[in-house]
Amino acid sequence: MAKKQILLNAFNMNCVGHINHGLWTHPRDNSVDYNTLEYWTDLARTLERGLFDGLFIADIIGVYDVYQHSIDLTLRESIQLPVNDPLLLVSAMAAATKHLGFGITSNLSYEPPYLFARRMSTLDHLTRGRIGWNIVTGYLESGARAMGLDGLTAHDQRYERAEDYLELVYKLWEGSWEDGAVRRDKAARVFADPARVHRVRHQGPYYQLDGYHLCEPSIQRTPLLFQAGTSPRGQQFSARHAEAIFISAQDKAATRKVVQELRQQAVQAGRRPEDLKIFVGIAAVVGKTKREAEEKFDDYWHYASAEAGLAHFASSVNVDFARYGLDEPIDYRGGNAIESAAQTAQANALNRRKLLERFRLGSRYPTLVGDAQHVADELESWANDVGVDGFNLSRTVTPESYEDFIDLVIPELQSRGSYKTAYAEGSLRHKLFGAGDRLPARHPAASQRHVPTATPLARANQHEAAHPV
Amino acid sequence: MAKKQILLNAFNMNCVGHINHGLWTHPRDNSVDYNTLEYWTDLARTLERGLFDGLFIADIIGVYDVYQHSIDLTLRESIQLPVNDPLLLVSAMAAATKHLGFGITSNLSYEPPYLFARRMSTLDHLTRGRIGWNIVTGYLESGARAMGLDGLTAHDQRYERAEDYLELVYKLWEGSWEDGAVRRDKAARVFADPARVHRVRHQGPYYQLDGYHLCEPSIQRTPLLFQAGTSPRGQQFSARHAEAIFISAQDKAATRKVVQELRQQAVQAGRRPEDLKIFVGIAAVVGKTKREAEEKFDDYWHYASAEAGLAHFASSVNVDFARYGLDEPIDYRGGNAIESAAQTAQANALNRRKLLERFRLGSRYPTLVGDAQHVADELESWANDVGVDGFNLSRTVTPESYEDFIDLVIPELQSRGSYKTAYAEGSLRHKLFGAGDRLPARHPAASQRHVPTATPLARANQHEAAHPV
Repeated sequence: MAKKQILLNAFNMNCVGHINHGLWTHPRDNSVDYNTLEYWTDLARTLERGLFDGLFIADIIGVYDVYQHSIDLTLRESIQLPVNDPLLLVSAMAAATKHLGFGITSNLSYEPPYLFARRMSTLDHLTRGRIGWNIVTGYLESGARAMGLDGLTAHDQRYERAEDYLELVYKLWEGSWEDGAVRRDKAARVFADPARVHRVRHQGPYYQLDGYHLCEPSIQRTPLLFQAGTSPRGQQFSARHAEAIFISAQDKAATRKVVQELRQQAVQAGRRPEDLKIFVGIAAVVGKTKREAEEKFDDYWHYASAEAGLAHFASSVNVDFARYGLDEPIDYRGGNAIESAAQTAQANALNRRKLLERFRLGSRYPTLVGDAQHVADELESWANDVGVDGFNLSRTVTPESYEDFIDLVIPELQSRGSYKTAYAEGSLRHKLFGAGDRLPARHPAASQRHVPTATPLARANQHEAAHPV
Repeated sequence: MAKKQILLNAFNMNCVGHINHGLWTHPRDNSVDYNTLEYWTDLARTLERGLFDGLFIADIIGVYDVYQHSIDLTLRESIQLPVNDPLLLVSAMAAATKHLGFGITSNLSYEPPYLFARRMSTLDHLTRGRIGWNIVTGYLESGARAMGLDGLTAHDQRYERAEDYLELVYKLWEGSWEDGAVRRDKAARVFADPARVHRVRHQGPYYQLDGYHLCEPSIQRTPLLFQAGTSPRGQQFSARHAEAIFISAQDKAATRKVVQELRQQAVQAGRRPEDLKIFVGIAAVVGKTKREAEEKFDDYWHYASAEAGLAHFASSVNVDFARYGLDEPIDYRGGNAIESAAQTAQANALNRRKLLERFRLGSRYPTLVGDAQHVADELESWANDVGVDGFNLSRTVTPESYEDFIDLVIPELQSRGSYKTAYAEGSLRHKLFGAGDRLPARHPAASQRHVPTATPLARANQHEAAHPV
């Protein structure tokens, strides 16, 4: 039997400080150039050289103002502020590459669905089927206030709204234009066959629509659906909708349980365990030898900011850790639901000193330090023992952390038969699942598809035929 | 005195049929490839070869369903349907060029201002100051219904809302981050100085905001502001806010009056006549000789669709022309206010036969047909006698209509001293006005600027200093 193939996304954000905080100050780190095109087109080419499946770009609407009740440290350490729009990077990177996928975070609580559906379709066209959407609903009070709202919608209600939103955009992506609607027939003067383009009506509890999708069908129609929710309601949502799930984890045994639960919930939702590709967030500091890797880690460590990592975490869990003494036990029941119960329990047993020690490179993510063999051993263990499908590799000192990984770890994985040696052809979805460009019939989006219209074009002149909904 | 320099934008849209309808069926027309990256990067390179100032991309939210109360013809002739998102094209084209500006249409009625402000800032960063925004408020009932609304907001109220929207985004672009706020100082571990980043509060009649701009200042801060309103309320709005105004016109004497009125209104709004760059929409069919141009026009004419042009116009003025006999006088008082009074009066005297004759290449725009000397004569006449500053050149058969113009007309204009022979350095705004990257102090956006904070970084640790608003 063929060895399990490890999937790989680079994890990044259109900002300076993303996950491993403070490393922007390293002399070789170029993340301060995040606002230039070259930064992104160079990165995309680098990742494609490493045969990365995708570049996953996080996003946040709002600022981290919980720690010290201020954004001072956020600004000084550029903790995801400033943060530019991620979608607008895609077309330049797509022009610089051929295979790399793009998983882009967009917050559905704030993006009007009719316009958002067009954005995704446009990018799926321009990338020839390489676009994915990381579905988030937002968790920052500062974001809600910036959007002119009184405050954040309650967590579970955000998921109710997300269900409604997805039903609406599925109708646009899957149901408005049939396959075969677009003919591009110059001689017959028929760009599109009106009998095969359908008016969509949606009267949901949160969203309404009466109109046509503005875009002709793109290769994937619905973008590849990413999700990162690990709350109970978030897991339920993921199991129903997500094709790729991004989890953060430290403990292998606990993660193995989460992975099994997610796949079971997918089955309960009428899907298959393998319909979910589960990615875990990691960082890696790799050297030609163990010693070189450790020296590199020590060098990085001098530039990292554990306090910035803690300030970021403070907004994630909505607790101002600065209010506690270094050794004072921290109680933060009522923390934000983006954290899994397991993580919350772990953190509850901690004080600020211990927390700071955990943010060694400014991040809570597992950081693999060692030579290529060690890193490959760990990745294979997560894949085979824990059961994840792949990794979202965060950057440390950029771009060298990606380059080191590509130069050292990728060949090692390839020599073990755990990583592809060439890209497959086709869309992002087909590359990941090997079963075509479109969502399978068992996914809820498929129920929004229109039964193909058999009428000849001639019937298009009949008003009723063109408006069958 | 130096000769008046003619400004030039290409006028295009992320769709197949834009202005000169039906020409997508011409064997050499490639507009059916609008959904590929190459179509746009090739176009951008072509325009930069012709030293075009900008590529102006129109947009529409909604479908043209007035003519025959149907979208059948709209689909068959692809009359601005499908239409993909224009903003997402920019980064790829920016990577393929160095100087070309991008004037992108976005409908403020539907785009949340906090997110829209970030989109514009992101593109201004990525393009190094080459982004412009064509401010529209929408006029299609079908667009409002697709957005889940009961119907369109009344015309004048849309402009009231636009005033509120602009005040909010000006605050973000001009007032949230001072010049000098961003230090990128690795040694001192200071990315941004908290004392120079300000919280923005806005409590307008339509929009509210309490937060920080998510982006550091871009080169232009506020994008170059385009506007195309020619109703009385639209003119008033343009005179106050717009830096570039796009007008459609047929009659030179009437247009001369409009141009004078616009500049007078700008003066009444505290600005200068030359603060407005006025562009008129035209098409050109150029040949090496008059005869070659006329033969080319005849060839194009066989593929054009006057009926598609009329169907487009039907939605512009909200009149179903199909209801009238060919020679029956058309009365459409109450037509849409996007049309100038002069045009409405002209059209009122027409019947459908005469209207169809006016849409010779599927468009109402003036179409110059002739050799380079004739076309250059006409352009100079519009510039010098009518007083416009430049042209939005629509495509006929694409890309050859742009290539013909660049190969034949541009050298003729250059030989006359009416057109630049090289790009100036700097941002789009500086290229057009020669007075720096930012809006002048007499523009209303300037009143949202923050008086520079003189405090040293040390004060940033004081909470009050970091939140002076």
